[in-house]
Amino acid sequence: MSNKLHNDLRKEFQLERMILFSDAVFAIAITLLVIEIKIPELHGEHITDKALLGELKHLIPKFLGFIISFMLIGIYWTVHHRMFGYVTNYTPKLLRLNLLFLFFIALMPFSTGFYGEYTGVLMRDQLKVPMSFYVLNFACAGFVNYLMWVYITNPKNKVAEPSVDPEIAMLARIRSLTVPSVFVLMLIVAFLTNVIFAVYIPILIPIFLRIIQSRIKKKFAATTNNQNN
Amino acid sequence: MSNKLHNDLRKEFQLERMILFSDAVFAIAITLLVIEIKIPELHGEHITDKALLGELKHLIPKFLGFIISFMLIGIYWTVHHRMFGYVTNYTPKLLRLNLLFLFFIALMPFSTGFYGEYTGVLMRDQLKVPMSFYVLNFACAGFVNYLMWVYITNPKNKVAEPSVDPEIAMLARIRSLTVPSVFVLMLIVAFLTNVIFAVYIPILIPIFLRIIQSRIKKKFAATTNNQNN
Amino acid sequence: MSNKLHNDLRKEFQLERMILFSDAVFAIAITLLVIEIKIPELHGEHITDKALLGELKHLIPKFLGFIISFMLIGIYWTVHHRMFGYVTNYTPKLLRLNLLFLFFIALMPFSTGFYGEYTGVLMRDQLKVPMSFYVLNFACAGFVNYLMWVYITNPKNKVAEPSVDPEIAMLARIRSLTVPSVFVLMLIVAFLTNVIFAVYIPILIPIFLRIIQSRIKKKFAATTNNQNN
Amino acid sequence: MSNKLHNDLRKEFQLERMILFSDAVFAIAITLLVIEIKIPELHGEHITDKALLGELKHLIPKFLGFIISFMLIGIYWTVHHRMFGYVTNYTPKLLRLNLLFLFFIALMPFSTGFYGEYTGVLMRDQLKVPMSFYVLNFACAGFVNYLMWVYITNPKNKVAEPSVDPEIAMLARIRSLTVPSVFVLMLIVAFLTNVIFAVYIPILIPIFLRIIQSRIKKKFAATTNNQNN
Repeated sequence: MSNKLHNDLRKEFQLERMILFSDAVFAIAITLLVIEIKIPELHGEHITDKALLGELKHLIPKFLGFIISFMLIGIYWTVHHRMFGYVTNYTPKLLRLNLLFLFFIALMPFSTGFYGEYTGVLMRDQLKVPMSFYVLNFACAGFVNYLMWVYITNPKNKVAEPSVDPEIAMLARIRSLTVPSVFVLMLIVAFLTNVIFAVYIPILIPIFLRIIQSRIKKKFAATTNNQNN
Repeated sequence: MSNKLHNDLRKEFQLERMILFSDAVFAIAITLLVIEIKIPELHGEHITDKALLGELKHLIPKFLGFIISFMLIGIYWTVHHRMFGYVTNYTPKLLRLNLLFLFFIALMPFSTGFYGEYTGVLMRDQLKVPMSFYVLNFACAGFVNYLMWVYITNPKNKVAEPSVDPEIAMLARIRSLTVPSVFVLMLIVAFLTNVIFAVYIPILIPIFLRIIQSRIKKKFAATTNNQNN
Repeated sequence: MSNKLHNDLRKEFQLERMILFSDAVFAIAITLLVIEIKIPELHGEHITDKALLGELKHLIPKFLGFIISFMLIGIYWTVHHRMFGYVTNYTPKLLRLNLLFLFFIALMPFSTGFYGEYTGVLMRDQLKVPMSFYVLNFACAGFVNYLMWVYITNPKNKVAEPSVDPEIAMLARIRSLTVPSVFVLMLIVAFLTNVIFAVYIPILIPIFLRIIQSRIKKKFAATTNNQNN
Repeated sequence: MSNKLHNDLRKEFQLERMILFSDAVFAIAITLLVIEIKIPELHGEHITDKALLGELKHLIPKFLGFIISFMLIGIYWTVHHRMFGYVTNYTPKLLRLNLLFLFFIALMPFSTGFYGEYTGVLMRDQLKVPMSFYVLNFACAGFVNYLMWVYITNPKNKVAEPSVDPEIAMLARIRSLTVPSVFVLMLIVAFLTNVIFAVYIPILIPIFLRIIQSRIKKKFAATTNNQNN
């Protein structure tokens, strides 16, 4: 019995280790985002505030990219946080899915930097490559996230016990597809119309997430009412 | 009952995860500060100690910036440490506020590097842009910190139970406004008088914090005496 | 008695600290891999998608190196995870072996970058140095990993209690030699035949690991059956 | 009573947070060491293994610096690990001392890079500046480490309860002064004789530490015998 408790504690620690390792990767990726923004370097006899402001103005697209990616990594971390709130057990498959997910997180500083590097001339030259790279990176992360939800909420896999309520599970899956969907929409808009419209589409993500969130809450309230009646 | 305990433990672990994620961001930001100081590179036939000392002398403003920022991130971490000593519960809003706070922490290596890059010519050319950027970054962090104190110490939000003593809460809020206030003062001095005076103002922060600290202690002692009588 | 419990808890925390420190090094190394891939920088009047795709095409060997190393660090982390699942005690020697192991993990972003830098011209110029450096780095990590298994599974060292089942111990040791063996094979192929064949050999690692894994399971099942009869 | 337990657990978590924050800084600093070693870049028609080996040969002093610093940060981490094995309580002063210690740890990637950059020409040009910078960095860390031991082992400060055995305390203090002493010796040798002799002095550190360690053990054995008789 005491041995069983010991095994349970150990298992829990092994699960915690996986979670904290993921947290560290998230934390490093989110902090490395800023590394790709190079400090403006001016040399010469007389450096003016005006010249520096001009340099900072050139960095605005990079800062926007930094802010959007910070927000998105933050959202993914929050989702990871919520998801592993259900997990009570770990399997080699969950570990592999999680590593694949972290792969796309670790790639984000690069794709953010690549996108930010060319946002300034994006509109002028109608560039689609940096945006597509960026979008694919974040969409892949979102899709692996969806696969993780599918795996975790499937009672057969026994990674979440007691198993997640089927309704919550379904809604979590839907929500996890929001970010990739918005990004695919962004790509379609960029290729069919003008890249300039596409740039602003990620702003829709928090709005979409909030709508789905409130729907979930309503559904919940309705279900609870039904159960009470 | 056992289920309740399990839920409580889980909730606590979720809160711990948020705290340790924040710690990782702090640790990375504080260690990345030094990355922005480039190693002096001299080439040629004969490299002398004198030439290297000259190069190091040019790096002094960068080192000063590194030391001040290290100290400030250290103070913010200490405050975060103290603040979450009260938190027993977490809400999506606290999570969002914390992410916003971490955003300004993650930006600090950049703004420190930017400020350090031009501190050397700051006085010569009366540059205000790098200093303003730096000051705004740290003041924003301080302000979000204040908002977090307001949120946590408000008993309605139920994130700190038992709720924080109103007097401690008030003093924590006042203290959290010290750093942003000193920085705003620094900007005013820079714009009205000479940037050279402004540079030394952050040195006042530890002094101000100590004065407020000792006031808190006195107040505490007085309150305890009152209660005892 | 209570004192003994306290000492046990403390000892456990010290062990946890060593594990979490290792996790942090793994997490940083795995996230820094991408830092070595520089963002393509094009300047000029008109930047085209075609030019950017060309630049990305040049980065393909670097991305492949990034993916393979990510996978390998992931495997090493998983093994470390499994290994320390048995450890209940720590000794100065285990600490030193672990540090030596982490040394080769920390070196991986460099050797991956070095290998990736020259993979593109590897075939053209039959370069063996970058590949050898890369291979030696990963093979050394694998070999130290093997030494750690030997140390941990030796009941005399009392780091794993109850001591690891001799059969599991033997299989863990065999498995830990797979990665270094494949890499040594890769080097032999590169030096005897053509480097182009050698490049694809790491793909065999997951296949080899899976074969060994399934053998372990069969052996296990057989043993259990024998015990049951 | 239950409240007291809760407070104790919380206090313990706060202490753990400080320790894990320190671990993260150690882990980042130790992994960033390798960042300062730039990947050799050769361009041109035909790149040969010989040219690459030549480039790697130039990197040997940097690799040596990397290995020595990795070993030293490893030792400092081990000492930190042992030291906090005694700590049961934390005070603002301990927090500040720890931050100061981490400051010198975070500086190590820079000073290692600076030293490594010029080790190659050190002997030719008798450069003393990079070595002095490096030595001062590590000696300062060692000295703050000594101050931490003094603070922690002083029973008046009540950070370690039960208080550390006076004999162990004394030996820990002596041991913590070994690294700075060897480094000061290295500086004296460099300034009085030839820098080339000084370079090899850090190799003495593990030997010195081992001698002191074995002395401690003997002393211990003697004390235990005395107590038993």
